[in-house]
Amino acid sequence: MNPHILPVPLEKAYRLINHGPAILVSARHAGMDDVMAASWACALDFSPPKLTVVLDKATRTRALVEGAGRFVIQVPTAAQLQLTHVVGTHSLAELPDKLSRAGVTLFDPEGHDLPFVDGCSAWLECRLVPEPHNQATYDLFIGEVVAAWADERVFRDGHWHFEDADPSWRSLHYIAGGQFYAIGESLKVQVEN
Amino acid sequence: MNPHILPVPLEKAYRLINHGPAILVSARHAGMDDVMAASWACALDFSPPKLTVVLDKATRTRALVEGAGRFVIQVPTAAQLQLTHVVGTHSLAELPDKLSRAGVTLFDPEGHDLPFVDGCSAWLECRLVPEPHNQATYDLFIGEVVAAWADERVFRDGHWHFEDADPSWRSLHYIAGGQFYAIGESLKVQVEN
Repeated sequence: MNPHILPVPLEKAYRLINHGPAILVSARHAGMDDVMAASWACALDFSPPKLTVVLDKATRTRALVEGAGRFVIQVPTAAQLQLTHVVGTHSLAELPDKLSRAGVTLFDPEGHDLPFVDGCSAWLECRLVPEPHNQATYDLFIGEVVAAWADERVFRDGHWHFEDADPSWRSLHYIAGGQFYAIGESLKVQVEN
Repeated sequence: MNPHILPVPLEKAYRLINHGPAILVSARHAGMDDVMAASWACALDFSPPKLTVVLDKATRTRALVEGAGRFVIQVPTAAQLQLTHVVGTHSLAELPDKLSRAGVTLFDPEGHDLPFVDGCSAWLECRLVPEPHNQATYDLFIGEVVAAWADERVFRDGHWHFEDADPSWRSLHYIAGGQFYAIGESLKVQVEN
């Protein structure tokens, strides 16, 4: 594994997605890997850390998540703008070579049999918390984060360091129609008296 | 109402929060108003538009949402950094003058008996979709968006225009410990061949 990728303590894992980035969801089941982009992912709890993600019934990734009961949420970078858009607008069902077409390279951290997307800034390995009513009615899935990692070139000591990193590391925040915003400048509140 | 505040068509309301900003939740019940900040809010559906928001049991706002069955999600600006932090770190239970202390001014669009926070960039009026299991187990609330507005100085024609507006209009994206990021530059994907 890339030596820049370091574990993130579980109690700080929520910070990897707290600022609302577009994320990539990946899953592996029955010998098949898929990756999709999603904007509708959100922290749900601190301890144990949980998150929600909306997975449309039309996506192949959803079937893999349901089959395996495990998935990875990862934070793509500005350098992965095109990759993120391609995996977010094509399905493996219509484009069997979707992943190579999008330029996705996968890796497995030792002992974790899941497809992690290379080049992202952060990864959250999740166990599906089955909630059949939410899944069927709202396409809403709950995951418990069981392990997390980040690239120390942009996240270290429990904080993002976008301001010190190359702009290609910025997280992506999606609006619509292929338009994203990169995350911007750091703002710190004044301590109250 | 401020003449810059214009209705947003419901089918485009998700775009007001799709980029993952910190939001303010406000509610009114039995003559009481409260406003809190939250980062854990997320779009859930396009049509009818729905969203999720996590409301801790310790918050007074949650009790008002449960009592009234209605609430407002609004998008604060960089100019409201301190306001957002104060309403996110104090409860009306311990600080009865929390709203005036934070500098919150409320307004009601005509015919909408709910507390809207002045100076924000966007507002989504929501009807609570009762899901007792989610609320009790996960502090997770679902709202159906029934009306939406935005300030046309920063959101118009269905799109954010952060890049043309004063930086004080930028949305806030929270990490932890009083540190936020403002939203940054616009990135557009290349059309595929």
